Amino acid sequence: MIVVMQPGASQEQVQDVEARLRQFGFDIHPIYGVERTVIAAVGAPELDRNEAKEQLESLPWVEQVTLVLKPYKFVSKKFRERTMVAVNGLPIGGDLFVVMAGPCTVESEEQLFKTAQAVHQAGAHILRGGAFKPSTSPYSFHGLGRTALELLQQARAMTGMPVITEVMDPRQVELVCEYADILQIGTRNMQNYDLLREVGRARKPVMLKRGMWATYEEWLQAAEYIWLGGNEQIILCERGIRTYETYTRNTLDLNAVPAIRELSHLPIIVDPSHGTGRASFVPAMTRAALAAGADGVMIEVHPNPASALKDGAQSLTLDAFRELMRTLRPLAEVMGRRL
Amino acid sequence: MIVVMQPGASQEQVQDVEARLRQFGFDIHPIYGVERTVIAAVGAPELDRNEAKEQLESLPWVEQVTLVLKPYKFVSKKFRERTMVAVNGLPIGGDLFVVMAGPCTVESEEQLFKTAQAVHQAGAHILRGGAFKPSTSPYSFHGLGRTALELLQQARAMTGMPVITEVMDPRQVELVCEYADILQIGTRNMQNYDLLREVGRARKPVMLKRGMWATYEEWLQAAEYIWLGGNEQIILCERGIRTYETYTRNTLDLNAVPAIRELSHLPIIVDPSHGTGRASFVPAMTRAALAAGADGVMIEVHPNPASALKDGAQSLTLDAFRELMRTLRPLAEVMGRRL
Amino acid sequence: MIVVMQPGASQEQVQDVEARLRQFGFDIHPIYGVERTVIAAVGAPELDRNEAKEQLESLPWVEQVTLVLKPYKFVSKKFRERTMVAVNGLPIGGDLFVVMAGPCTVESEEQLFKTAQAVHQAGAHILRGGAFKPSTSPYSFHGLGRTALELLQQARAMTGMPVITEVMDPRQVELVCEYADILQIGTRNMQNYDLLREVGRARKPVMLKRGMWATYEEWLQAAEYIWLGGNEQIILCERGIRTYETYTRNTLDLNAVPAIRELSHLPIIVDPSHGTGRASFVPAMTRAALAAGADGVMIEVHPNPASALKDGAQSLTLDAFRELMRTLRPLAEVMGRRL
Amino acid sequence: MIVVMQPGASQEQVQDVEARLRQFGFDIHPIYGVERTVIAAVGAPELDRNEAKEQLESLPWVEQVTLVLKPYKFVSKKFRERTMVAVNGLPIGGDLFVVMAGPCTVESEEQLFKTAQAVHQAGAHILRGGAFKPSTSPYSFHGLGRTALELLQQARAMTGMPVITEVMDPRQVELVCEYADILQIGTRNMQNYDLLREVGRARKPVMLKRGMWATYEEWLQAAEYIWLGGNEQIILCERGIRTYETYTRNTLDLNAVPAIRELSHLPIIVDPSHGTGRASFVPAMTRAALAAGADGVMIEVHPNPASALKDGAQSLTLDAFRELMRTLRPLAEVMGRRL
Repeated sequence: MIVVMQPGASQEQVQDVEARLRQFGFDIHPIYGVERTVIAAVGAPELDRNEAKEQLESLPWVEQVTLVLKPYKFVSKKFRERTMVAVNGLPIGGDLFVVMAGPCTVESEEQLFKTAQAVHQAGAHILRGGAFKPSTSPYSFHGLGRTALELLQQARAMTGMPVITEVMDPRQVELVCEYADILQIGTRNMQNYDLLREVGRARKPVMLKRGMWATYEEWLQAAEYIWLGGNEQIILCERGIRTYETYTRNTLDLNAVPAIRELSHLPIIVDPSHGTGRASFVPAMTRAALAAGADGVMIEVHPNPASALKDGAQSLTLDAFRELMRTLRPLAEVMGRRL
Repeated sequence: MIVVMQPGASQEQVQDVEARLRQFGFDIHPIYGVERTVIAAVGAPELDRNEAKEQLESLPWVEQVTLVLKPYKFVSKKFRERTMVAVNGLPIGGDLFVVMAGPCTVESEEQLFKTAQAVHQAGAHILRGGAFKPSTSPYSFHGLGRTALELLQQARAMTGMPVITEVMDPRQVELVCEYADILQIGTRNMQNYDLLREVGRARKPVMLKRGMWATYEEWLQAAEYIWLGGNEQIILCERGIRTYETYTRNTLDLNAVPAIRELSHLPIIVDPSHGTGRASFVPAMTRAALAAGADGVMIEVHPNPASALKDGAQSLTLDAFRELMRTLRPLAEVMGRRL
Repeated sequence: MIVVMQPGASQEQVQDVEARLRQFGFDIHPIYGVERTVIAAVGAPELDRNEAKEQLESLPWVEQVTLVLKPYKFVSKKFRERTMVAVNGLPIGGDLFVVMAGPCTVESEEQLFKTAQAVHQAGAHILRGGAFKPSTSPYSFHGLGRTALELLQQARAMTGMPVITEVMDPRQVELVCEYADILQIGTRNMQNYDLLREVGRARKPVMLKRGMWATYEEWLQAAEYIWLGGNEQIILCERGIRTYETYTRNTLDLNAVPAIRELSHLPIIVDPSHGTGRASFVPAMTRAALAAGADGVMIEVHPNPASALKDGAQSLTLDAFRELMRTLRPLAEVMGRRL
Repeated sequence: MIVVMQPGASQEQVQDVEARLRQFGFDIHPIYGVERTVIAAVGAPELDRNEAKEQLESLPWVEQVTLVLKPYKFVSKKFRERTMVAVNGLPIGGDLFVVMAGPCTVESEEQLFKTAQAVHQAGAHILRGGAFKPSTSPYSFHGLGRTALELLQQARAMTGMPVITEVMDPRQVELVCEYADILQIGTRNMQNYDLLREVGRARKPVMLKRGMWATYEEWLQAAEYIWLGGNEQIILCERGIRTYETYTRNTLDLNAVPAIRELSHLPIIVDPSHGTGRASFVPAMTRAALAAGADGVMIEVHPNPASALKDGAQSLTLDAFRELMRTLRPLAEVMGRRL
């Protein structure tokens, strides 16, 4: 921790800060500059002394406090080089470029089964499908709930594909665990800490979507919550952030791919459907995600987007999905990935 | 709903859109321009036909779909002129400028009681204090939980001030209702829909903080969730949004005050502590909130910010709070508000 | 300057960084922590060694470089306590709350003179009016140019009010100086450095609007450009920043008022017309600006907004402006400001 | 243009709006809904009637005005399918994936020539190098000016590569045209309209970088300014936008690639150096740009980033650039592009 004192801070004020830092267990190294005094504090784990920064910043004679260490530990690259999350034998985070595909929302047996079979035949590895849906509008469709979970289970039996579905309420975690192979935490719940703790206790892999307002650091701190709950099977998913640009639904931040690679050992997946909000942009951004080094993508597919109950505008048709998979193969090969 | 067709859309494509709109129950008014055909659809409640917009936008021959009506109904100004939320006889949303004050987090009996008595004597109306705390870092303090709730109850008995505290987990709503006079939904949970539904069933007023990424429209849709649950006692709270400016913790969006006034009948409160993140900015922004027409403020106060477990940098000292209240009085009078 | 080395940096790498810092003229204070080495560099002016930070950050063995000092000097609070800019005897930055008012764009003699007389009678101090207009669309009106400047001069003769108008092109600075009392740099030109240098050489006060993407720091660095050109008569103007919220034209960042007060000695003005984009929000935000401690406001007024060539939606009518001025007086008194 | 009246608008108010629309030359189609009246106005070019929208929005009885057409014409996809910009025989916007590379700033003969030869040998097509540099800080290096232009000319003679360099001041356009093959408009000047008009009159291709705050629509309107000046040789360059994420210098918005493809016929280039601000992220994002369908990239390269006068942290070494070019070739082939 580096504490920069205000210019003109008195000797007493410098000593006050030093005393506080010592109380937190730090060793003190004061540096007396011409304009300012700077105090370096080392020798104690910053992570467990989070309040130190805020407390010192509340002192009028302190100008600025900078942390030297990252605010997370176990999900950090320094803890481990690379994590592979195994989903029913399917390894995520290795040389496989994993494709998760399926409808935004499970609407009916016919819709789900038709989509599941088509994406399976086209080469998708994991089936996505919403049972409990977060909707900005209270008047929108909120999913079929348990019925959808049962349909997903049947689709899995039919195709052999593992299933990913969102869980929104800590009270549903147990139920969803019975049916799903991966629990998805949606963007709106990235900082729903009780839910993070609950999935931290689950024995299923968790895919944590980035909050549309969240920095990489906050996202990794949210992952650390899950880790500390006891669950190390965490997959990150970049799905676009909120910016001033409204032509696209979100701004897909592919910088996140090399950034997360550098900061963490966890696998990183990209969701070009929410990241663009436009079906016609999904193929280009899927290819970009692969070329940027992502470990996979999650894509919304619907047999008839123009009758979808949700997210029709960003869903690929079955044909468009097949065509996309076809163009991905040579690209994956060049990138040294299996598809 | 206004549907703009792509230039060059065929007669069949126009008829396809018209047929779909009729199925949703709309009356159709096509307008044939030189470059484009525009179809106006009226006569049916858009709100219950949310999927229509998305479905039509997924058609390649549709360029753009604009909703004519707002995506919320009961919290809208058109439903009611003004709502007054009564908290133990204290009316929020009338001529009173309500001041909620207290520590970010309840840390100890001494800290809470000292703060409660001081803010009460200085003229605050409602006591705030965190029992369950959302923290970006899993290594930070998360609140004393039930112990804090009990201390808050004692502080209420001591001062007569109603108590507001945050609820984060749908499973805690019942517990928190036993102790609190107002349930607070924090910024990270503005789109935690299961929690919104749960407080919608509670018989206590709810203060809904704006998500740091949320538009006014999304914020009012979140309020509509609570309303539809059966709870009409809703207070909105602007607490700053996330922008590229990092010198302040958030960007306090005071435009929200006249905007919400125009769009909704619900009372609107401002939180200058989170909205700035700096204690030295809180007095200026509290005065600005009052002058902008807000119904009140929520302010973090701590007997010794430099030893606070959370948010020390943005907490006022007891003296600073007293001084602020002193300067607010003549301002309130000029603005026609009671303090 | 504080340099945090990567964990595991070798002794040679630490020495390399130390050698570079010494070459830049810094004294070196290395601190050896458990996980990392931190090097504090003091004793030389960071400001003149801007490249040091970037160069060090390009080294793979350096994790992070933090500057201790602000990247501006003369516009900083540390250089001077308070600057008063005198405009034809009118002091900006003192106890006067200065009101600049007038049409967005000078459209005609009748429109300008009518507005000028009305705002003058209502108590405005300075007349605004665009002669050269930046327009997002190349198809919009771009102002009457020199004709407008001449009309402004006549309006000044008629009312005695000093005149502020925008200059966009370094080649126009001399011309605009002949007519205007304050040169306005618009939001789009905040980082148009050749223009900043040119108005730095002018003998007229300059009002520098904040770039809609600019941090406080970048804004003050832009002001420093003007100062270094030789012109110390600088007024800052907060006019709203670009965020994801689109209901308002911009997000008016009133946090800028206490922030600039703390960081700089320059006067700060608020533009609620562009900051909201909606005439009905202007009175509330003008009052908020005054209560936040701003030194004045700039307001768009038009005799007939519904026939304005630009910015009609955010212009007050003459009646609305008069009414606003009436409500400002008691507020100014309470805030200890003259109006 | 679609005008939505306020609920409860009177018959007179509806007629007022209709009369105004007719005056602008529109044909009127009123639609009377249950809650609201909607007026569709067609048959006249919206583009030339920009003020209509703003004027109507200033009427209290109008709720919302939506434009049906895009606010630009000649740079639109509807005007032309695809534009190929020829730079000394090098076609940009076709099957070539053009690589522009070179130092941020021309610092010396040795630095420039060494870089030019290395990037040329590695396969770059165009040499970049700053002569006039925009710098946030007035204390930073601002470029060698004319001396740099002369060195660039020599480097071109030496390698045969065309040269791109930035022009910041309308007064420099003529000078820069003498030396450069492509004029670059930097991000800060995207809405510097006098500069846009000036390069619109030049006979050299112009590369227009996206303003870090600009929407696609505003960017294309800026391009339309250049077009209307008479210069149709325009290249767009996505270089990252400003968001709340600060780990990267900007957020590279690769959605812009499919978006611009859909909206415009102009070539689109990506700048991963500014788009990330970190040399280690440049290779991943260069590959992503190619896979997303961009027409090329612009990359900062320096023989010794740790001694660069600007942007060292984001500059590739000569070796890293060579290695990147090597990995691009098979990717380009798969994407059907020449390198």
